[in-house]
Amino acid sequence: MTKSAFGVPGSLSIRHLPGLRGISRDDLLSILQVAQAFRESIDSKSPVPKSLSGVSVVNLFFENSTRTRLSFEAAQKRLGASPMNFSAASSSTAKGESLRDTVRNIQALGADVFVVRHSCAGTPDFIASQTRATVVNAGDGACEHPTQGLLDALTMRQRLGDLAGKRIAIVGDIRHSRVARSNLWALPTLGATARLWGPATLLPRHPEAFGPCVTVAKSLEHALEGADAVMLLRIQHERQSSGLLPSLREYRHSFGLDEARLALAKPGALVLHPGPVNRGVEVVSEVADNDQSVILDQVTNGVAVRMAVLHLLVGKI
Amino acid sequence: MTKSAFGVPGSLSIRHLPGLRGISRDDLLSILQVAQAFRESIDSKSPVPKSLSGVSVVNLFFENSTRTRLSFEAAQKRLGASPMNFSAASSSTAKGESLRDTVRNIQALGADVFVVRHSCAGTPDFIASQTRATVVNAGDGACEHPTQGLLDALTMRQRLGDLAGKRIAIVGDIRHSRVARSNLWALPTLGATARLWGPATLLPRHPEAFGPCVTVAKSLEHALEGADAVMLLRIQHERQSSGLLPSLREYRHSFGLDEARLALAKPGALVLHPGPVNRGVEVVSEVADNDQSVILDQVTNGVAVRMAVLHLLVGKI
Amino acid sequence: MTKSAFGVPGSLSIRHLPGLRGISRDDLLSILQVAQAFRESIDSKSPVPKSLSGVSVVNLFFENSTRTRLSFEAAQKRLGASPMNFSAASSSTAKGESLRDTVRNIQALGADVFVVRHSCAGTPDFIASQTRATVVNAGDGACEHPTQGLLDALTMRQRLGDLAGKRIAIVGDIRHSRVARSNLWALPTLGATARLWGPATLLPRHPEAFGPCVTVAKSLEHALEGADAVMLLRIQHERQSSGLLPSLREYRHSFGLDEARLALAKPGALVLHPGPVNRGVEVVSEVADNDQSVILDQVTNGVAVRMAVLHLLVGKI
Repeated sequence: MTKSAFGVPGSLSIRHLPGLRGISRDDLLSILQVAQAFRESIDSKSPVPKSLSGVSVVNLFFENSTRTRLSFEAAQKRLGASPMNFSAASSSTAKGESLRDTVRNIQALGADVFVVRHSCAGTPDFIASQTRATVVNAGDGACEHPTQGLLDALTMRQRLGDLAGKRIAIVGDIRHSRVARSNLWALPTLGATARLWGPATLLPRHPEAFGPCVTVAKSLEHALEGADAVMLLRIQHERQSSGLLPSLREYRHSFGLDEARLALAKPGALVLHPGPVNRGVEVVSEVADNDQSVILDQVTNGVAVRMAVLHLLVGKI
Repeated sequence: MTKSAFGVPGSLSIRHLPGLRGISRDDLLSILQVAQAFRESIDSKSPVPKSLSGVSVVNLFFENSTRTRLSFEAAQKRLGASPMNFSAASSSTAKGESLRDTVRNIQALGADVFVVRHSCAGTPDFIASQTRATVVNAGDGACEHPTQGLLDALTMRQRLGDLAGKRIAIVGDIRHSRVARSNLWALPTLGATARLWGPATLLPRHPEAFGPCVTVAKSLEHALEGADAVMLLRIQHERQSSGLLPSLREYRHSFGLDEARLALAKPGALVLHPGPVNRGVEVVSEVADNDQSVILDQVTNGVAVRMAVLHLLVGKI
Repeated sequence: MTKSAFGVPGSLSIRHLPGLRGISRDDLLSILQVAQAFRESIDSKSPVPKSLSGVSVVNLFFENSTRTRLSFEAAQKRLGASPMNFSAASSSTAKGESLRDTVRNIQALGADVFVVRHSCAGTPDFIASQTRATVVNAGDGACEHPTQGLLDALTMRQRLGDLAGKRIAIVGDIRHSRVARSNLWALPTLGATARLWGPATLLPRHPEAFGPCVTVAKSLEHALEGADAVMLLRIQHERQSSGLLPSLREYRHSFGLDEARLALAKPGALVLHPGPVNRGVEVVSEVADNDQSVILDQVTNGVAVRMAVLHLLVGKI
């Protein structure tokens, strides 16, 4: 594979990745194409350009995350970076420093790119406005988690081909899900439609904001019917204590994906989940582990997508 | 020193290192020989092959450890790896994910080798059964700590030569010690005999499991008499609260190694301790710091042994 | 820029950097000159010698620190090191191991240089006496923080030129400040004078120890009058509970730097602060963010100074 398979750093029309809302179809397709090349390099254990060597990468996690942080770190190290990790717990924000001051200070250490996770929606945009560094959103509140949206799209494209005309069912706590939101901006841009279902308290208040390709289903059966892929969302246990969710047993009964329900979708329809899976709640093990499940594929694609984003935004070759 | 001094990656008959139980004498000697070469490279500050460069190494520590983790990290970095550290505290196992799912997820990030510490015996074997990655045990419950057994053997061989026919006294909490167990599998394979002593409550229930070369002594004096090396084990303070151990003062009085007791062993007999040492409990400072003590040598050999294991199991040249 | 701009590793007359007390003017100027070269390489994103590649660097932080640790890490990574981080919280010192044993053990892992932060004054000297490794002080109690003193000097030289004859006002909690102490040893060596002011309870007991170039002012106005630079110190909130400090509002009123007070200093006088800034306490935002403030410059210079110190003390080329 020649270097050009990985695209040309700087060729996207964006300089930051705060989210997938408003991203152009061209940028989206460029990232997915390069991500596919990186995925192939992971599978074949073939070398990739060390385009982040000498680039100062800071992972700025104000919210705990093992999975996403490790995935970004794996991507960064594959591209030759030696990232620095900053987590809020041990930070000077605890000393009463403002976010602006913290960010400007870390940037003054020489950061070229910030990978940011924060519990407040909009933080990546705010940080981008305060620094010369590039900002990649690794999850902001209930707003966006763009690299998850990208890895979901990459995973579906690998199995389904072009997503134009494809129908995706999304089931679960959509209202609080940044994963769902990033998907709901990306899928229409790629020509797919999404049908949503979940407890009434956990459906989005304004699904129409995502445009005509996104609709709320009338029932779980209606959502699943004829779907090319079923995307499940993780139930956060804290939703229960806040009264938005019946018991987990109830959830499993009304919304959990089992083989009978999956049979309503197209034959061979894909099953996606951002993980970690609550087995027996969002999905039974028989489905989570069958051939239609692409859950572990999503994880590997996460590394490939993050490599593509970082390579295209701040790589040097 | 030519590259070949470090042996040939892939030449062991094993693919994982869950423990020293059942390891062949050939594999044991190969590892020790390569470890000796790495030790010499550390002392002479001479270069080593960067055989872990591009190998994805994950340190998976479900139990806290500073010393063993730093030693593995030092070994990995000397061989050119950029390891990823996963510790249980901040992990998604806290979110109720099963060990199997956690491991399969981390492997999907692209891990080639897991270095695993866990409080449950057998975890490394379980993980090996669930992934395509290589697994190296960094301590599982009271079962094994194979790289410690290897570093002890390397340290003794450096001073005593071939261990065949050598007599090793092991004193302390043998029942709960994974360090002791790994030694008790390795020493007979290398032709040495071991004589055990400690509080009755802390002696192994079935010493005969280790074969005829391992015996329980009749007294501390009997254990030490004529020994080529005295291996002390760390007293865990929690043994006291569980009633298995008298006071630390009592322990020092009945089992602590001082100069008079050490004089019962062969002249110049080695003193080993896996650290951290409780000075004045397992051993008095006069002995811990004298010429016969190889305690700090063990630490440096730990890095050499871990380099050898990783290089031989997953190195690329 | 040729390699020689970065000086010659090993050319300083010192082997450790426990503090700036007693450092020779020649060593001080060598470090500052090399630091300036590294600062220019940061700004121009030009390559630097990977002189820490293969050097085993251990960051030994017995006290929490995000800012200083990240700065040292950034410096180390720019020079090609893969540092190991040891923090007290997760360490075996918690298991009752003595500092001497901890240090000797970590050194046996192969450390070439320790970067040490500890709440006890004198710890870096003690560690230097126990190991063959080089020791760089990253802050010991209320004693010294030499790389901060160096970065302050570098920052002032960049704007003011030669510091000989320059007048520096230092305002705040001088008694408990290792930052102030390192400056008070360095400034006279560079020919500058310092005038101190702050709450009576927070002024040094024996300012005469720093020699005739350091004096206590009669008032805030007297301290600021004609100063070439104003160095503010961070107020630690815990000083309040211990009764040494009136309320923060009171502090702002009596000691906070605002535009009117800054006007007493020379036109264009610099404003320095080691961060994190308590906005509205030590300094108002109008001053912290104006053109005379070099607070963020200090942060970048911190990386450059740490590169210079490590390169000159333990670099290999």
